[in-house]
Amino acid sequence: MDIAIPIFDGITALDAIGPYEVLSRLPGARVHFLGVDEPGPKRTDNRMLGLHADGALTDLPHPEVIVFPGGYGTRGLMNDEGILAWVRAAHETSQWTTSVCTGALVLGAAGILNGLEATTHWLLLDKLGELGATPVSRRVVEQGKVITAAGVSSGIDMALTLAARMAGEDIAQAIQLAIEYDPEPPFDSGSTAKAPPRIVEMARERS
Amino acid sequence: MDIAIPIFDGITALDAIGPYEVLSRLPGARVHFLGVDEPGPKRTDNRMLGLHADGALTDLPHPEVIVFPGGYGTRGLMNDEGILAWVRAAHETSQWTTSVCTGALVLGAAGILNGLEATTHWLLLDKLGELGATPVSRRVVEQGKVITAAGVSSGIDMALTLAARMAGEDIAQAIQLAIEYDPEPPFDSGSTAKAPPRIVEMARERS
Repeated sequence: MDIAIPIFDGITALDAIGPYEVLSRLPGARVHFLGVDEPGPKRTDNRMLGLHADGALTDLPHPEVIVFPGGYGTRGLMNDEGILAWVRAAHETSQWTTSVCTGALVLGAAGILNGLEATTHWLLLDKLGELGATPVSRRVVEQGKVITAAGVSSGIDMALTLAARMAGEDIAQAIQLAIEYDPEPPFDSGSTAKAPPRIVEMARERS
Repeated sequence: MDIAIPIFDGITALDAIGPYEVLSRLPGARVHFLGVDEPGPKRTDNRMLGLHADGALTDLPHPEVIVFPGGYGTRGLMNDEGILAWVRAAHETSQWTTSVCTGALVLGAAGILNGLEATTHWLLLDKLGELGATPVSRRVVEQGKVITAAGVSSGIDMALTLAARMAGEDIAQAIQLAIEYDPEPPFDSGSTAKAPPRIVEMARERS
């Protein structure tokens, strides 16, 4: 089972690594980090880390699973016809097409979210409407084989949901235990509905 | 503020990337991924991903913050006197010395956990006792400037705790919102206390 995670300069690392850490533990899974342009290291949004792409998108035209991560680098991808063409063709034969954070905007730009409910990072939820989707403020949105997740850390929840669909709930739960995903955030400010208004404003200004 | 994350072949990626995604957003933070031996790509535990080390441990003898991630690769590090010497010397001048998952075993092998409460991945909690620590089954254990976290995903909670200590609760909460960390695991099986016994057994067998 080939799982493609496209990576690019300006990626948000946790968008990709959350789902990778879950899905790589599925029986028979082979996760491929693929450069959207070419193989080699891709620098993250803050440029503090390089994730190594072992191949390029064109090396794997028909993965069973697509996980498109986000980051400000997705802005450029939304207008790149070569990348959008790969996404469309891969989606035609995929079993699952998924995104985390602003990865949804690339799926949207490729036309895949047309008429579907979808989500992305809370700061960019409005953008999804412009791309033909119905934006919904939920952590994980399932629409048939298309699953979109909200910002950054939500990819872990999305991937556990997907793991259960693919391999059953027992395996998904065993993976959850293996990565000891029993979250205890020290604060309750992980969504705009819960964070105090001044924190929402601060997060907006810092973004 | 220099934050050192030692990386090595056999690392569990999320151990490092969870804290990185939080701490890199602190004002003035510079996160350095440092190869324990030399710069270059380090392959993860399943060999499906290369994380690029831009420098080596010896390039940064006195970081303000140390985050030691885990993975089966830590087994070899526990007997590597050069690495343990770096950990000891860096800890002498650090403001914070932290670990995720089996990174705690490296801190323990360096003598840093002597007489302290500490935690690690549930599968290896007993090992901490052999290294002079008092093992405790908690997600994040603070002992002065030494903070240890449980398995893999717990590094996110540890880093948010640390972010609050370093920069105040408002900034920590704004970071939590920026990475939209409002966890909704689809199952409640993230700890041995919560998972059904057959899931614990399955996770143990698969490890």
